[in-house]
Amino acid sequence: MQRDVRQTFSFALKARDRQARLGEIATPRGTVRTPAFMPVGTAATVKAMLPETVQAAGTDIILANTYHLMLRPGAERIAKLGGLHRFMCWDGPILTDSGGYQVMSLSKLRRIEERGVTFQSHIDGATLEVTPERAIEAQCLLGADIQMVLDECTPYPATRDKAKSSMELSLRWAERSKQAFQILSAPGQALFGIAQGSIYRDLREQSAEALKRVGFDGYAVGGLAVGEGQSAMLDTVAVTTAVLPEDRPRYLMGVGTPEDLLAAIARGIDMFDCVMPTRSGRHCQAFTWDGRLNLRNARYADDPNPLNAESACSAARYSRAYLHHLVKSGETLGAMLLSWANVQFYQEVMGRAREAIAQGAFAAFAENVARRYGAAGGTDET
Amino acid sequence: MQRDVRQTFSFALKARDRQARLGEIATPRGTVRTPAFMPVGTAATVKAMLPETVQAAGTDIILANTYHLMLRPGAERIAKLGGLHRFMCWDGPILTDSGGYQVMSLSKLRRIEERGVTFQSHIDGATLEVTPERAIEAQCLLGADIQMVLDECTPYPATRDKAKSSMELSLRWAERSKQAFQILSAPGQALFGIAQGSIYRDLREQSAEALKRVGFDGYAVGGLAVGEGQSAMLDTVAVTTAVLPEDRPRYLMGVGTPEDLLAAIARGIDMFDCVMPTRSGRHCQAFTWDGRLNLRNARYADDPNPLNAESACSAARYSRAYLHHLVKSGETLGAMLLSWANVQFYQEVMGRAREAIAQGAFAAFAENVARRYGAAGGTDET
Repeated sequence: MQRDVRQTFSFALKARDRQARLGEIATPRGTVRTPAFMPVGTAATVKAMLPETVQAAGTDIILANTYHLMLRPGAERIAKLGGLHRFMCWDGPILTDSGGYQVMSLSKLRRIEERGVTFQSHIDGATLEVTPERAIEAQCLLGADIQMVLDECTPYPATRDKAKSSMELSLRWAERSKQAFQILSAPGQALFGIAQGSIYRDLREQSAEALKRVGFDGYAVGGLAVGEGQSAMLDTVAVTTAVLPEDRPRYLMGVGTPEDLLAAIARGIDMFDCVMPTRSGRHCQAFTWDGRLNLRNARYADDPNPLNAESACSAARYSRAYLHHLVKSGETLGAMLLSWANVQFYQEVMGRAREAIAQGAFAAFAENVARRYGAAGGTDET
Repeated sequence: MQRDVRQTFSFALKARDRQARLGEIATPRGTVRTPAFMPVGTAATVKAMLPETVQAAGTDIILANTYHLMLRPGAERIAKLGGLHRFMCWDGPILTDSGGYQVMSLSKLRRIEERGVTFQSHIDGATLEVTPERAIEAQCLLGADIQMVLDECTPYPATRDKAKSSMELSLRWAERSKQAFQILSAPGQALFGIAQGSIYRDLREQSAEALKRVGFDGYAVGGLAVGEGQSAMLDTVAVTTAVLPEDRPRYLMGVGTPEDLLAAIARGIDMFDCVMPTRSGRHCQAFTWDGRLNLRNARYADDPNPLNAESACSAARYSRAYLHHLVKSGETLGAMLLSWANVQFYQEVMGRAREAIAQGAFAAFAENVARRYGAAGGTDET
């Protein structure tokens, strides 16, 4: 699919229900209905899913990891092959992270300096560097529709001083990222800033205010879901979205469970990504409206019921007995079906959330889900 | 899908081109165009493929392994869950083998007696028995549309005496299988006999003649592709099909490469099954009209060409560079796409073979394929 260069990136806020927002992000590659969940396609593949099923699950946009793609097969190689969309046969919008998070979580011997991060590849041990400029260059080579500034994901816990200096470094990197983006990006591509500041309210406010002054197409809340707990996470989200501009999408990075998503939507978040649905799918876990099921559990050996009778997903029509058989037998199809069903479950949660916001009934919807999901959820974990 | 019990099993021979045959098998669950290739769904799944893609690849009928399904999850369990079609969400015809081949190739401590085979499960070591009657009972519990008699797959090499006594045992088991089938089967289900006799021409003729006298809905050629070599295999096929009745389908079990299939079609075979396309797909190998490719090969890292430009398969449109990246990264999608592309390649070979027979041009077609495939094939193996 050729990108339509006449089009630009834009965000339309279509309805509000208290802090919850219903919107649409327009990109040259298609529209993203918000609140939106982005399945994670780390290495240019949403694991164990065909692009057709990612789309059939109700996905408008996927995320890909710049760190992984820079290391293998290489951003320059993907550019020569026509860009990431063509490479992985995904025509819709793609958001790429900057690579910063994985540099800090996966690589060894990393050294963070003003200039950027030097690190060793977790694949072959090669010494590499990511600067704000290189992070943007790589994302432009990939051809990402939404790109992220390079930031330092502040480790948790962090002292106030450490959190402040880390947040300020991220701010300087955000400005450099924007300068690089203005030079390198193609029409219609967007750049998001990332707020940091650990769990310190004033630092989060400073970070968001400063990013707003620099000016981005959207704003992410970073450095959360790193051990601070759900309550601190949600408080920090609320503090940050209160400062962010109304007319730009807000993205909570790397979160989370269905309950987390609904709670964050209630605090003004529009976009999410998380490996949870696909990773859980590869580990025999299924998300349903009645909680999570572990399909390895012997109780399902003779269970003729479909995985999720309330889902429109083709993968959710298979019986629990069949899925139990597949995972017990180590058959790839088990991971394929559970990953698909889980991604579609997440998209169905987002779809119902959007409907509820449109109807001004989001709080009641989220409460019902939490009650039902919470009442049954967790009982089947092993 | 409910089986339409008014319908029956039948075979219509629609055209002949020398010994090559174009036909249609009608079953209550749908029509099978012959020559037909049956992908193997060992454990109630064609490995790493969705049923949707098995069908999209052009598949009319799949094979499932009774031995595997008897051991896990159990034929009685599948029957209680509504039968194999419902269990695996495959609405089309299913052929099941008798389990005999796997008993002899996979299990330890097997003992072959007149009554049947006693063996130890390769999964949990439990001692089990398969008799001709139990093999049919299990296939009826699964609800297979085409069932196979229990036979002894004569090991290769075998002395004439051993081959003769083994063939005669298989004949007695075939008669007992038929008696059990007449009692246990549902309307529209079919039973195939299996000719044995190793590579001894007279034994093969005796076996086929005797099976014909017993009378089956179709006839298989068993005990081949076990080390005798392609030339001996094809000679034995020709000897056997010369004796088999014209008005019944002939099935060559467990064969083979695309070249094998075309050579066997030229000798009067109508049906095939083989794990090769899916197993090769899981091992980075792709079948194309220009031979086999090993996608792990570094030569594909920058190759923008689609896997198989001549295929209509959705999986064959991905670039060789992308598939190389997936297999190098150990991504499940690599096995998914290569399995799909390989099964569809086999089905496209069958489709072109059927067209060629209809046009009376099969010999030229097969020769062209062999020349093109053979000229390029094998060069890329590692």
